[in-house]
Amino acid sequence: MSKVLVIAQGGGPTAVINQTLVGAVLEARRRHQGAKVLGARYGVRGVAAGDFVDLSAIGEDDLRAIAATPSSALGSTRDKPDAAYCQRILSGLRAAGADAFIYIGGNDTAGTLQVLEREAAGAIALIHAPKTIDNDLTENDHTPGFISAALFVAEAFLSIDLDFRALPGIYVGIVMGRHAGFLTAASASWRRDDSDGPHLVYVPEASFSVDRLIADIRATFERRGRCVVAMSEGVTGEDNRPLAESLIPPGRQERDAHGNLQISGGDLGLALQERIKREFPKVRARVDTFGYLPRGFVAAVSERDSREAFDVGAFAVAACDRPSGSVALQHAAGETRLAVVDLAAVAGRTRTLPGDYFDAAANRVTDAGLAYFARLLPPPPSIAAPLL
Amino acid sequence: MSKVLVIAQGGGPTAVINQTLVGAVLEARRRHQGAKVLGARYGVRGVAAGDFVDLSAIGEDDLRAIAATPSSALGSTRDKPDAAYCQRILSGLRAAGADAFIYIGGNDTAGTLQVLEREAAGAIALIHAPKTIDNDLTENDHTPGFISAALFVAEAFLSIDLDFRALPGIYVGIVMGRHAGFLTAASASWRRDDSDGPHLVYVPEASFSVDRLIADIRATFERRGRCVVAMSEGVTGEDNRPLAESLIPPGRQERDAHGNLQISGGDLGLALQERIKREFPKVRARVDTFGYLPRGFVAAVSERDSREAFDVGAFAVAACDRPSGSVALQHAAGETRLAVVDLAAVAGRTRTLPGDYFDAAANRVTDAGLAYFARLLPPPPSIAAPLL
Repeated sequence: MSKVLVIAQGGGPTAVINQTLVGAVLEARRRHQGAKVLGARYGVRGVAAGDFVDLSAIGEDDLRAIAATPSSALGSTRDKPDAAYCQRILSGLRAAGADAFIYIGGNDTAGTLQVLEREAAGAIALIHAPKTIDNDLTENDHTPGFISAALFVAEAFLSIDLDFRALPGIYVGIVMGRHAGFLTAASASWRRDDSDGPHLVYVPEASFSVDRLIADIRATFERRGRCVVAMSEGVTGEDNRPLAESLIPPGRQERDAHGNLQISGGDLGLALQERIKREFPKVRARVDTFGYLPRGFVAAVSERDSREAFDVGAFAVAACDRPSGSVALQHAAGETRLAVVDLAAVAGRTRTLPGDYFDAAANRVTDAGLAYFARLLPPPPSIAAPLL
Repeated sequence: MSKVLVIAQGGGPTAVINQTLVGAVLEARRRHQGAKVLGARYGVRGVAAGDFVDLSAIGEDDLRAIAATPSSALGSTRDKPDAAYCQRILSGLRAAGADAFIYIGGNDTAGTLQVLEREAAGAIALIHAPKTIDNDLTENDHTPGFISAALFVAEAFLSIDLDFRALPGIYVGIVMGRHAGFLTAASASWRRDDSDGPHLVYVPEASFSVDRLIADIRATFERRGRCVVAMSEGVTGEDNRPLAESLIPPGRQERDAHGNLQISGGDLGLALQERIKREFPKVRARVDTFGYLPRGFVAAVSERDSREAFDVGAFAVAACDRPSGSVALQHAAGETRLAVVDLAAVAGRTRTLPGDYFDAAANRVTDAGLAYFARLLPPPPSIAAPLL
């Protein structure tokens, strides 16, 4: 067990990422009296700058309060370190006397550790602890942060569908998700039968066209008298490019350090709203962008997600006896278990919706997909049968 | 007490409008054994068409389940009846043998009852039961449905602010509200101090300009390193017209039967996003439209709001011994109490944020405003002090 542990949070926050942080701190304390745990502010940026919070000095009650608070308590970063930046990170780790560095994040974060590993040559244990609301990490059954975000999305679409039963119309809710449709597909988790929305689901894994969307909406609207649509921000056109990309004027296209184009849903939403209004001039129609709401909503924190995220942090400390690795939340024989896999098995890779979870021809989540969400999410709140 | 009561739901749904419905049904049952309560489907449309659900035939357990389900169980309408339509409604009421008609809704709904009153000449009691997430009914301290929607907005901005502490940037959340800024102002309910977001609040009651917004954001961003903004859909430009209106191409401007231009937030959001991106090219910036999410979110239902909405329904039944009236939720001497006021005191009128609740120069909710929200909303969830 390491005596000095540096820990940081990378990428987008989640509702439970602080559980992982605190799980690691408490496990380090349990394993080794006098262990020092330094939290780097704003991810690797704080490591490089030597900007640390001494987490060992914080009492357990305060740590538990931090664990229960959504978003990244230490701050985060989207920096993608190059070789020179990595040298500064390693210098920061050495200056802190670190035996191990746990970096909590998604596949870009695992990628950063992989670059560090090449430079560090085994002197400091480099452990990736998974988190992402996108649920897109390979080797994982699901990722900490996903269940809570999925819970928000399921709650939102149940609520919106009740609204559109009362005042019929067309609704499109645009949900985060660049490459993987898990979060958008979670919108269907609590459907009871075919009359319930969302009636149509569009994910990045299936090719999309606005013409087909309009035809799908028309068919649903004629049959059900309303149409509720869940759509990923990252839906891809028939040219395999994100549709939102083609809607953003080139002068406004921006990419982050990881080369990801910022697709906020706003352009996509407005373009869809204009088209839907034109096609259905007399129908109440609305497009909303959920944006950041699902990823750290204080009132949509899953207990299971919290517990698993905490356990992932504790397990990452146990994994510090290896030179490197990525903690994975796996599922086998009806049980969820933790494992450590190579960084290379996770870094820069993207897991997408399994083919049998989604029926692209019908734009719907299959029974296999629904069974997956039912296994992860709590049961739906009690909703009365409609009087309509 | 009436022997045949017709009840309907009008306007936008809320999280607790079914509490009012069920409160009325159970009170009618309690007051008069054998009372018949007919629920009209889709508001006055169902009354005119004789399309009723016999609510007297539903057992109490099932009614309680309906009460706890958000949105309007009977369906709703935005129809604004003219004289001929009113005759059809009255014929529907007479054909049903109605002694009283309770219509649950906002100021447009009260307006419909006022037109009916002129035609009905006292034969049928016409009682308005208030509901609106906009909180914009005169004579009311607050309206059923508002507290739950405000709870969602407070939760959302607390969550977003935590997110933007971790990954600094500029965020604008656009909240429903055409004329009254109560719901947007509720975003500030759980601020602990000046460092907490939302840092800027824009409501329809104060004149707005995008240039000033940019200057306000710049000042906040320089001081705090991030800027979280809450903005009403209905913010008005210096020409006193809704800003969103000037952003919607004339060919796409649509009005509902009540003459309200549909302002969905999408146009406003995209225009703001473009401008903010241009002014702050290196800053993470995002504009989201909450749209319908706050108004019936299954996981943001206030207990107090539920109880009050139920009581309003029961009180409306007690008010049926009058020819007409509007139930009002008032506040005096530290207590909330129910009263009946004239339809004319509510119909077609709009209550806006009291002047002392909002400081337009600083774009912030005043202490008096915060005290109002603190009186209505539950206390915030426990949030750890920031480590940053």
